[in-house]
Formats: sequence, structure tokens, C-alpha cells
Amino acid sequence: MQQLIFTNEVKDALAGLVAEMSPSGVYILTDTNTRTIGEELNSFGGKLITIGSGDECKTLESIAKVWEELSMSGATRHSVMINVGGGMITDLGGFAAASFKRGIRFINVPTTLLGAVDAAVGGKTGINFLNFKNEIGAFCPAEAVVISTRYFATLPAEELRSGFAEMLKHGLISDNETYRRLLNFDIAEADLEALLPLLEESVEVKKTIVEQDPREQGIRRALNLGHTAGHALETLALERNEPIAHGFAVAHGLLIEMVLSHLMVGFPSSELYPMAELLKRAYVPAPAITCDDYPHILELMSHDKKNTSASAINFTLLRSPGSVEIDQTASPKNIRIALDLYRDLLGL
Amino acid sequence: MQQLIFTNEVKDALAGLVAEMSPSGVYILTDTNTRTIGEELNSFGGKLITIGSGDECKTLESIAKVWEELSMSGATRHSVMINVGGGMITDLGGFAAASFKRGIRFINVPTTLLGAVDAAVGGKTGINFLNFKNEIGAFCPAEAVVISTRYFATLPAEELRSGFAEMLKHGLISDNETYRRLLNFDIAEADLEALLPLLEESVEVKKTIVEQDPREQGIRRALNLGHTAGHALETLALERNEPIAHGFAVAHGLLIEMVLSHLMVGFPSSELYPMAELLKRAYVPAPAITCDDYPHILELMSHDKKNTSASAINFTLLRSPGSVEIDQTASPKNIRIALDLYRDLLGL
Repeated sequence: MQQLIFTNEVKDALAGLVAEMSPSGVYILTDTNTRTIGEELNSFGGKLITIGSGDECKTLESIAKVWEELSMSGATRHSVMINVGGGMITDLGGFAAASFKRGIRFINVPTTLLGAVDAAVGGKTGINFLNFKNEIGAFCPAEAVVISTRYFATLPAEELRSGFAEMLKHGLISDNETYRRLLNFDIAEADLEALLPLLEESVEVKKTIVEQDPREQGIRRALNLGHTAGHALETLALERNEPIAHGFAVAHGLLIEMVLSHLMVGFPSSELYPMAELLKRAYVPAPAITCDDYPHILELMSHDKKNTSASAINFTLLRSPGSVEIDQTASPKNIRIALDLYRDLLGL
Repeated sequence: MQQLIFTNEVKDALAGLVAEMSPSGVYILTDTNTRTIGEELNSFGGKLITIGSGDECKTLESIAKVWEELSMSGATRHSVMINVGGGMITDLGGFAAASFKRGIRFINVPTTLLGAVDAAVGGKTGINFLNFKNEIGAFCPAEAVVISTRYFATLPAEELRSGFAEMLKHGLISDNETYRRLLNFDIAEADLEALLPLLEESVEVKKTIVEQDPREQGIRRALNLGHTAGHALETLALERNEPIAHGFAVAHGLLIEMVLSHLMVGFPSSELYPMAELLKRAYVPAPAITCDDYPHILELMSHDKKNTSASAINFTLLRSPGSVEIDQTASPKNIRIALDLYRDLLGL
């Protein structure tokens, strides 16, 4: 299926992939932040296409610009696109490639930890539309993903922690040993050399799950751990004009859903404290929520697109690290108790 | 795979399909011409979405309108779209559904013969972009296609003949018996009751080929018979501001490629005359081409998106009815001779 290459020699790896695919043309998509990286990697005469950076550029207008550049420069069904950037670029570029002439091949080169561990692998592509995230898109995996930690050195520390939250999630749904290795890694003072093997392990967890269920009809929902609560926290913060990074919301969402797992399916309470300590060390400030916010948090959770009906709130829960229960419905009462205990654990 | 239902009781068939799928919502896409049909078929409280008619409305603007109506009326991943119309509606609606929330289910109800025999079945969806036909789209089959001849009675005679050209193509690539039955059917005075079984047979030919090769990497190219020459004639006519119907161009393209098949792979010359007679009876006026047009026709053929390189012109050829040779490269000289013989056969 999808080829994953873990290397810090990205330029050589890409040149090898392009030679192997012998495309009729190569197009390198970057945003304004990653254009220099795209130029450096271009040892094969590819054409650069650059769009604006940030989630606010993940639009129909941007993708139409990409399609136009492909069309006008004579790209064919046998061309290849290389997406160089964070999740915004690999999501948008993946959908641009998936839909151009009904699908051309593409390669992802994630330049952020969050992109490497999440967006670039697994075939979910798309753009935002109106006010809805990833409303328009396709399930379409990249031919190959080239993953390196070399681009992370210049990223803000916050971005690294944000991506690490998804790694924690992969550890939790995979097995206890993987999870413990992550708890022992100090993301606050990250050693990028030591991060690469952990990242490799983490991406393989995702790849294995996606291969079993590419279109998220069952076990892929394990990857939603932490995200029902996390998305609600993220939206709440956005509504208050105090946006928080996706991974920060997910990290806190993980603890909330671990508490809920304790209440509902017997997840050991002893596992809650190390995660709470990690959050207090690396994911501060915590979202400023009080019990007055609970009704709105519940409402936001009920709008999650993963729910099958408007009245039930769907969660992925854990019996223990590595033992996942998908499609669990929690009562508003249990969610309130979980939020209370979460706030206690963090001293909020 | 794709469920095909041949019936003139379309309303009942649709109601049954919707009940079986138990969607969270139903959206019926029509154009301004088919809106009344959409309203008649709506026995399940579906929401109607209507866009402009004609190929000039097969645009990004139209599909954005469809996405917007879906989003704003709360369509979910479990909603179903029903596309009621000709090839423009099933192509655009299919891509709208394939990309909304990364894919919702859809049903096609073709209302033209060309749509029934070609666009609605086989999963090619898309929109035009800039000046390129079907430049943006996806391979994504409808869950079900409900095919009836009842809507054809009110169509212009030209439309029926246009669709019949694709049926002739399916006969030619299928087997001699099927092809002979079509030659014996009088499309100029068509009996719609007698057409339904022939249509069923024809759609099954396409379905069988598509199932073997959904993404057109091999045998599906058999379906391109008549289309390399046909597209060139269609574009030439358009450039002269004397547009001809797609099916008329394909009918004439079939004869040109039958002649080329005779020259290159021994297709029997005796088969050329009945087709020429049919063209003279039902596909008039013939495209007004002279030998002065040959260089431009060759140029148009070389731009066909089915070609793998700019210098070779790719054809699907026939040894006999039912015996197909894909990926044949013809020399300019043979193409010129074929055009000469084609003009002789028609007395042009």
C-alpha cells in the first residue's frame, strides 16, 4: 500500500522515488513558508506551485489555483505531485491530486510533526468549505510519504508538542510499552534524533489501522481517541477568540476521555496521573473551563460529524493502554463527571 | 458492485432503494429541465437542489452551489443524493457526492439515452474546468442506477440517435450477435418498448468491462472505440461554431476507426458498408471535412488525453465485432488513408 520512508536525506529519497515513478511531469506544491524547502528538494526539474499558508488558505480558491496551474502547464494523468508542508498542504494537495483528471499520483513530505504523525499518512484529504473543516475531500492515499525530523528544528516549540499529542494517542491505542516510551520522552526538551524512531513507531500504528479500515467504517475510529472532547475544547477556544493549537486540545481531550474510560469501561485510575503531570508540564495553559461551560461543551460534542444521530455523543474509549472500545455512547451525566474529575486532576 | 435496475416504474424503484439505504437525509439533484421529474419521483421527502442545464453549467460554480446546499441543510455522511438528469447532472452530481464529507452514497436516474448508456454507469464523475472537459473529478460508482426509457419520448430525435451511437459501440466491442441486433433496430423510427431490452444488454456490456478495470488501466480502453476520431470531429465542429452532438461525432468516429481497423488489423471490409448506410440514414449531415482538414484533425487527435506521449496517437481497434485491440498506435499516413476511405464510403 502506501510506502513510508523515514530518513533525514529527503532530497535523495525523493529523487529516487521520482526516478522510479518516471512521471510525465513533476509538480511541487508548497505554501509561502515551505517554498524554500520545495526549491531545495527539486533536483528533478519539477514546477513549483505555491499557495498562501495557514488553515485560512485551505479553501476552494486555493485548490482552484492549483488545478489551474496543473492544467495550464500541461500536467497529464501520468504526472506526479509532491506536497511539501504541514497538514494544510498535504490535505489540500492530496485532494488536488486525487481529483485532477480523476486522480494523479502524489507524494507527501510533511514538514511538521503534526503533519508527519497525522495528516500526511492515511489518505484523508480535503479542504475547508464555508465554516466547515475538511467538508470537501476524498479518501486517497499518497503513493509515498517521506518523513524526516530535520524540518522540525525551526518550528515553534508549541508545534512540536501539538504533534506529540497525536503520538501519545497512537501509543495509547497501540500497546502499553509504546505508550510508556512516549511518557518517558521529554517533549519539552525534545531531542530530534531520538524522536525519529518513536515517530516511525507511531506512524506505523496509524498505517496499520488505516490499512484495516481505509474508509473509517470501524476500527479506524480508534484514531478518534481524544478528539470528541478535543474538538469541543478547540471550538470553544476559537469562539472566545483565544484559539489553542489542535494538538493542545487533543492532549487535554485525551485526559478527559481517559477519565471517561475509567468511569465507563474500567480504565485504571493510576494511568490518569502521569498524563495529568505531562499536561501540566508541556500543555499549558490548560483550557480555562468551569462548570458553567459544560452545557455548551456538551452541545459542541453533539455536533461532531462522527455522531450517527444528533442525540447520541460518540466516543472511542480505552479499557487499558492498547485495549480500545469504539462506538461508545456516553450519557451527559458521565461526561459532566468526567469533566469535573479532569479539572480536579489539573487543579482547574 | 453497482446495482442496475431496468424498469419503467422509476418512482417505486427509487422508493425501495431509499427505504433499503435508510439514509439520514435525501437530496435530489436536477437541472432546470428535469426539476419536474425530480418532484414527481420524490415520494420520500427529499430536498430538491436545482442547477442550470447544459454542458456550460458543468462548472466549479455549479458544484460549489450543490456543496453549499448540502452543507447548509445539514447533510451528513449518511445522507444520499439522487441525480436526476442527463450526463451533465450524473457527472457533476456524482462528483459532488463523491467529495462531500469525503464521499456520500448516490443514485443515478439518467433521463437521456446517452446518459443511461454511458455517463450514469461506470463511476466516471467530474466537472469541466477552464476549457477542459471533465478535468476535475473522481472515479466513484453510484450505489445504484435506475434506467428507464420513459423519459426518452419527449427528447429530440437527435438525442436518441446520439445515445444509440454509444450502444453501437458497445455492440461492436461485445460480440457479433449483439451488434447485428442493433444494426437491425431502426433508431430513426425508434420503438421505446423494444429499445429497453437492447439498452439493458448494452449497459451490461459496459458494466462488465468497468468491473474488470474500474480505473481505465487496460481493457476499459475498449470503451474508447470511435472516440479518438470522434472527439477530433466534435472539437473541429465546435471550433467552426457548428457544434455537432457528441453521439453524432462518435458514430462517425466509429466508421473512421473501423476503416483504420481494416487497414491495420484486418477488420473485414464487408462490415464497413452497413455502418456507412446507417450513418447516411440516421447521422446526417455528416461532418463537412475535406483533405485540407487532415493536418488539423491529426493535431486534435494528438492532444487526446488518452495518449501517453505527445507524438503517438492511440486508438482502440477491432479485428472483428467482439475482438478488440487496445493501445494501438496509428501512423499519420494510415490515419489519412482511413479518412479518405471514410469520405468515399459516405460520398463526401
